[in-house]
Amino acid sequence: MPIISIEQAGKYDGQEVTIRGWLYNIRESGKLVFPIFRDGTGIIQGVCALKENPEAFQALKGLTQESSVIVTGTIRAEQRAPGGFEMGVSKIQVLQKVSEAQPYPIQLKEHGVDFLLDHRHLWIRTPRQASILRIRAEAVRAARNYMDSQGYILTDAPMFTPAACEGTSTLFEVNYIDDQKAYLTQSGQLYIEATAMALGKVYTFGPTFRAEKSKTRRHLTEFWMLEPEAAYADLADMMTLAEGLVSAVVQSVLANKSIELETLKRDTKKLENVKAPFPRITYEEAIAILNKHNNPTKFGDDIGGDEETIVSNEFDRPVMVHRYPAAIKAFYMQPDAERPDLALAFDMLAPEGYGEIIGGGQRIHSLELLKQRLQEHHLPEEAFNWYLDLRRYGSVPHAGFGLGLERTVAWICGTEHIREVIPFPRMIYRVYP
Amino acid sequence: MPIISIEQAGKYDGQEVTIRGWLYNIRESGKLVFPIFRDGTGIIQGVCALKENPEAFQALKGLTQESSVIVTGTIRAEQRAPGGFEMGVSKIQVLQKVSEAQPYPIQLKEHGVDFLLDHRHLWIRTPRQASILRIRAEAVRAARNYMDSQGYILTDAPMFTPAACEGTSTLFEVNYIDDQKAYLTQSGQLYIEATAMALGKVYTFGPTFRAEKSKTRRHLTEFWMLEPEAAYADLADMMTLAEGLVSAVVQSVLANKSIELETLKRDTKKLENVKAPFPRITYEEAIAILNKHNNPTKFGDDIGGDEETIVSNEFDRPVMVHRYPAAIKAFYMQPDAERPDLALAFDMLAPEGYGEIIGGGQRIHSLELLKQRLQEHHLPEEAFNWYLDLRRYGSVPHAGFGLGLERTVAWICGTEHIREVIPFPRMIYRVYP
Repeated sequence: MPIISIEQAGKYDGQEVTIRGWLYNIRESGKLVFPIFRDGTGIIQGVCALKENPEAFQALKGLTQESSVIVTGTIRAEQRAPGGFEMGVSKIQVLQKVSEAQPYPIQLKEHGVDFLLDHRHLWIRTPRQASILRIRAEAVRAARNYMDSQGYILTDAPMFTPAACEGTSTLFEVNYIDDQKAYLTQSGQLYIEATAMALGKVYTFGPTFRAEKSKTRRHLTEFWMLEPEAAYADLADMMTLAEGLVSAVVQSVLANKSIELETLKRDTKKLENVKAPFPRITYEEAIAILNKHNNPTKFGDDIGGDEETIVSNEFDRPVMVHRYPAAIKAFYMQPDAERPDLALAFDMLAPEGYGEIIGGGQRIHSLELLKQRLQEHHLPEEAFNWYLDLRRYGSVPHAGFGLGLERTVAWICGTEHIREVIPFPRMIYRVYP
Repeated sequence: MPIISIEQAGKYDGQEVTIRGWLYNIRESGKLVFPIFRDGTGIIQGVCALKENPEAFQALKGLTQESSVIVTGTIRAEQRAPGGFEMGVSKIQVLQKVSEAQPYPIQLKEHGVDFLLDHRHLWIRTPRQASILRIRAEAVRAARNYMDSQGYILTDAPMFTPAACEGTSTLFEVNYIDDQKAYLTQSGQLYIEATAMALGKVYTFGPTFRAEKSKTRRHLTEFWMLEPEAAYADLADMMTLAEGLVSAVVQSVLANKSIELETLKRDTKKLENVKAPFPRITYEEAIAILNKHNNPTKFGDDIGGDEETIVSNEFDRPVMVHRYPAAIKAFYMQPDAERPDLALAFDMLAPEGYGEIIGGGQRIHSLELLKQRLQEHHLPEEAFNWYLDLRRYGSVPHAGFGLGLERTVAWICGTEHIREVIPFPRMIYRVYP
């Protein structure tokens, strides 16, 4: 008798198989019970009649939610069943019946978000959360495959760093060994600029940390970022790479996670458009769009969350805004040769109000200009000495960007808050469970 | 004129191409210069004659190591050249000539390891270090592909954890927001036990942290670990998964990174054997091997580094040692039903003295037994309350393991110290650069 996963059920139409999982829900109707089983790969409805299978019927009747079960039965096509197949249950082994006195905490009803976050280790079992996690995994897989296919070499940036790179207010301090201090990385960029000079085209994809005190739906203290960096590359190269990457991720999720998107009731029409090329507009063109919509943003202002939504609503796919005022961008941004007040930087704004998912651009490769910028930004040259070495020894034009995984997955899934798209979200007052 | 990477040179035999990279070394011989260029994908020797290309010759003559250059020339087969091809240089643009007054710090000679680690951002440009990083990237790619191919879903475990899981002496404390404390994860295992109950088969692959004060060649404070976990799986399932994973990683590196292995002068014969199935011996059989070699280890003792080498030397591929005394293994290990003094745990020992690269086993799924073990190990039940929930609500037999990426890559590369196989190693007194 084959032991199968529920996602394979369609291949076993008419055959007797065994499934190992949990009871997700059960409906009783006289001498029939309709259990729903889950095994992590999907959900299948069962049916069991007292008359035909009295032992299995008795075991199922009154069985508590999330009890662990090994079920044997015949798979058959059933249009009315979710997934198109159901199982005629002939035999069931209950591994653990969840106590009626202490039932499964997450009932099939609405719970408050704090309760759910306190029970995140169980919350992830619900079809919605499980679907989100499976989509996240697919997005990571697609993103890595795309980077590899473009000849980018993975070089993991370190988590421990000796000093703050950009401002210290959102930096986590670690009590390192023997009273040393270390800081958790906020971005791997500076490090992969070094590996790009060694390997040409590189990326890092790991956790990054920000001590964000803002309690918005877009912030986590611990989040994953994919950051490519390439030697001999410029702003346009990075915009091309970024649109290729985001298209590949979205199209892979559409192709391989359609059941999960359906579980989330995601409107996939809006995702189907997400194909390169993406529109590219200048910062100044973005300002003009805002002004057209009576938004007062003017040259030199940051484009905030509300403004991002107004701009992105003009387009049917992500839009890339480039050439921001140098004054509002990081110290390492290469100025535009024709307009030195502009930085060769770009952001990618996701549609549907999801805001910035990518930020990047071309880096300064002149030693003198980089030193001048460190001074202007009141950053200590000493801490950046190794970084300046990259401009002392064979400096070349280079560029890169960072893609926020959780923001990207939240947009693809259409979730309201990014806390749902990471297995165990960390926020200002939450490091549990 | 095509711009190519050096690894593509073989495809352009007889054609004029442009390469963008750095001068790795140069030899001058009267009216000829023989520069060696690198671009991160490989190394190619050039040749340039004063008579034929006086401008390029003058630009190359006396050019300093690591100067950045864009070079145009004709590719031609040349058996004596490394890689089998060389470039007849016709044109060169020097982007930045490294100053003769402040030459590239890493000369083509031996340097002390502290000096090299202080200059890790430059050290990675040497062929040996670049090859190691490329092999690491291939190992990660192969490992992820293998896990995905086996139906395991990536679920990233958190970096911030609320409490110590196994002992506090090697735990890093973080100053979290508003005087809260958090700790950096030592293993994602407990968390992926939760995701396994949600998704069936899962893995996490990310940084883990240990405040290791031991200065051995096998320890880093920050290292990457791949940890699978599967519901309804047992010890034997995990040994099968582990040997499949390690075989896939080694065979992928052999197939796709032969040039890099050659650069490292790695004896690949010893790697070619690494194919599943691997030998499986019990702990007691391992003790017998040790005693046969006059090593006094007896039942109940840990198998240390020297002992691992004696045992693994008996085999031509990694060996899996299983069923250790429960007393020397972690609190969550499932006892062997037939021999409750043994834990259903296993370690995989790499050949050639590289020691343990995998540790894992079957987890306790009984709530009562797990509570008892927490008491026996003097661990606070309160901190593990969420973890105990996994045994309260639909507990099932489950198993998993952790593979240390750096130890695995160090073995594949044949490096003496694992500090070379991570881009920016962190050790007891090193968080720089």
